[in-house]
Amino acid sequence: MDILMLSNGKIAGNEHVMGFASEAIIEQVKRTGAKKWVLIPYAVIRSSHDDRVAMVQQTFDALGLDCQVTGLHQAKDPVAALKAADGILVSGGNTWVLNKTLHDLGLVGPIRKAVLDRGVPYIGWSAGTNIACPTIRTTNDMPIITGAVLPSLNLVPFQINPHYLEAKVEGHNGETRDERIQEFLEVNQHEPVIGIPEGTWLHLHNDQLSYHSANGKDLKLFSYGNEPLYYSEQQNIQFLMAHSC
Amino acid sequence: MDILMLSNGKIAGNEHVMGFASEAIIEQVKRTGAKKWVLIPYAVIRSSHDDRVAMVQQTFDALGLDCQVTGLHQAKDPVAALKAADGILVSGGNTWVLNKTLHDLGLVGPIRKAVLDRGVPYIGWSAGTNIACPTIRTTNDMPIITGAVLPSLNLVPFQINPHYLEAKVEGHNGETRDERIQEFLEVNQHEPVIGIPEGTWLHLHNDQLSYHSANGKDLKLFSYGNEPLYYSEQQNIQFLMAHSC
Repeated sequence: MDILMLSNGKIAGNEHVMGFASEAIIEQVKRTGAKKWVLIPYAVIRSSHDDRVAMVQQTFDALGLDCQVTGLHQAKDPVAALKAADGILVSGGNTWVLNKTLHDLGLVGPIRKAVLDRGVPYIGWSAGTNIACPTIRTTNDMPIITGAVLPSLNLVPFQINPHYLEAKVEGHNGETRDERIQEFLEVNQHEPVIGIPEGTWLHLHNDQLSYHSANGKDLKLFSYGNEPLYYSEQQNIQFLMAHSC
Repeated sequence: MDILMLSNGKIAGNEHVMGFASEAIIEQVKRTGAKKWVLIPYAVIRSSHDDRVAMVQQTFDALGLDCQVTGLHQAKDPVAALKAADGILVSGGNTWVLNKTLHDLGLVGPIRKAVLDRGVPYIGWSAGTNIACPTIRTTNDMPIITGAVLPSLNLVPFQINPHYLEAKVEGHNGETRDERIQEFLEVNQHEPVIGIPEGTWLHLHNDQLSYHSANGKDLKLFSYGNEPLYYSEQQNIQFLMAHSC
């Protein structure tokens, strides 16, 4: 498998979506030879799915990659479209809408088969990274739909918190991100959570997990009963694949 | 009914939980004569349920109110405890854990009967305000449990977003609170969302809805296709009870 899990889409001062991970995307395209990419846009709520496809096509074009992006929402038969795709992209937006739509359309199995069995490259950001986890329990998104589905693609055996942020808004008494993750750990004491700040990503390639940071920010590993630990992109994080901390 | 829905528990510089709404609580206790209060502490994850009971007892004591607070978690028969209670308090914490526990223990009906049929006063804050809504779809909390339940107490016919905050963290590209609420509206176009900032609360008394602010901050009403509107505590918001905007 060749799975890129980005914290977010855009970062300040970077005009293209996924721009901060340009080198990783170029390498992945060259390594896999993937030309026909299908974008899963169901998380996108406040703009059109077609626009999101165009936005991602612009990134590929700007990187000088000879790749074509189509939207899975445009396919008459989404399962057939996934089978025909050389690569799968999953846009950010609302994780709840994305995950439920994948289940409603019967796409969880086909995506897992493509990525895990056929080795089709996967690039997700934000919600597209949340759904690579066993469940979406570490999303930051509001559960805007009544039919909540939590189990997800389970491409990696741990929970990721994308857009991870240590900041506290002065004077605000709502829970910090760390406090929310500590609540997760209290209830799920055997499941680590990996916070990845904006501008960073995880890469799972042939069972080897690595962390990458475009801005020097570290990954933050939360596990029950322990102080959180920071890992830089130089450090080995392969132990996370064993799903124990 | 006599329902106080507070945005949050503590605010900076205010030592007691619910301290910013002291006058409203004193008035409610005098109005209803409620002495035996039961606290529903299931949202509390990072500290003990007993401690939360003690914290709320301290508030009542500090306000000079002759009230006794017991925890519903201490009751052998929670339904009987709700029937015997003069007043119901619901603590903040994790909304998902709170709401699912109420459903698991069969407490949704008993709470609704107490509050709506018998007129037992209700005070909720944060998660305790989220569950007064038809569903918990406008919670800010992380869905840390695998069995998600969204329908809730439905004491008011609209969705509330507690700890409402307009701030944006500089350089952070995750969705703002307003963007999250806009996503809710895109999917739920006939349901308004009411953002109540910290230090403020809603009061539903004999079908009359009012807004109160200890710090001058306005309520913010979000409805589909419209610019958000601000309401001060001097303005009439009774139209929200008709569930149309």
